[in-house]
Amino acid sequence: MPPDALTPDRILEATEEVLRRYGPAKATVVDVARALGVSHGSVYRHFPSKAALREAVTARWLERSEVALAQVAAGAGPAPERLAAWLESLFEAKRHKAGDDPELFATYMVLVGEHSQVVERHVTTLVGQLTEVIEDGVARGEFAAGGPAAEPARAARAAWDATNRFHDPAYAADWASDGIRPAFEAIRALVLTGLGASA
Amino acid sequence: MPPDALTPDRILEATEEVLRRYGPAKATVVDVARALGVSHGSVYRHFPSKAALREAVTARWLERSEVALAQVAAGAGPAPERLAAWLESLFEAKRHKAGDDPELFATYMVLVGEHSQVVERHVTTLVGQLTEVIEDGVARGEFAAGGPAAEPARAARAAWDATNRFHDPAYAADWASDGIRPAFEAIRALVLTGLGASA
Repeated sequence: MPPDALTPDRILEATEEVLRRYGPAKATVVDVARALGVSHGSVYRHFPSKAALREAVTARWLERSEVALAQVAAGAGPAPERLAAWLESLFEAKRHKAGDDPELFATYMVLVGEHSQVVERHVTTLVGQLTEVIEDGVARGEFAAGGPAAEPARAARAAWDATNRFHDPAYAADWASDGIRPAFEAIRALVLTGLGASA
Repeated sequence: MPPDALTPDRILEATEEVLRRYGPAKATVVDVARALGVSHGSVYRHFPSKAALREAVTARWLERSEVALAQVAAGAGPAPERLAAWLESLFEAKRHKAGDDPELFATYMVLVGEHSQVVERHVTTLVGQLTEVIEDGVARGEFAAGGPAAEPARAARAAWDATNRFHDPAYAADWASDGIRPAFEAIRALVLTGLGASA
């Protein structure tokens, strides 16, 4: 491959930088093409529209968190500890993205507002990770088999919804507030007890 | 009192009707005065600004739900049943207000966006009701004294936050969706189990 072959990855890297510089409202495909030194037609050969490019770049940006969270979910410790650490890592990742990468976070919020399949897939992936931790915990006798954890997929979705104050971008303005840490810990404790976590 | 004395209550009733007809963006104090057959100066003698009038009318509108919910909280049955019924009534009241009284709900959302003290007081009142049910349940041995319910105010706030998908107006568009009922029941079960509700 020649060093400057125009691959989808190179286009997405350039798009991230362009989005960081101009924000989702002002960034254009022409800006991306200019940053790469190619015609906008060359970009369109890989991504048929600005919307497709925006979705692909956001999907890639979200996947980085998904990979990191999958490692937490698949760790070696007891399931309740992994679930606690997973919720912590999720909140940390969202807060980091909102605070330190505001233009890409704004792009993500545009897709949330459009009910994009990228956002739907992201939620499905993360709820799937939670489901596996709960299933594993029930199998090992670390979550009560008789309560809500008996239906791991349903319990995972409930745990996801119950913690939405800490991952739903609608609450992003709240994530730097004073009371957010004790609020997070109180809900996490309620969720873990609700799943019948053995102490 | 003469039948047409201009009381704060009469002004608030007229304001509700004006808001329902014109919506929060278009309704003016002059419209309210016209509906009452008085000058706008007479209205201003009771409410010094349009903002004050909007806050008072929303507070009154929210208080109706608070009174109904207080009755559910203070009922005679076991605390876990009262808490389950209370969450159900809260969701029902919010859904009813959003669906059947959209202009006053929109007014409420304006105040939410402005971080109005009216909204803050409403949340404090409702979390206070939840706290009393949890305290009562712990005293009667119907919630586990050793888990999250041991700190009733903190547990009440956690239960409030955990169910925000069913009462936070940011989610109102979701309240008529297909999956909302099972999602509500799953979270309610998780919260009740988390409080150590005796079966």
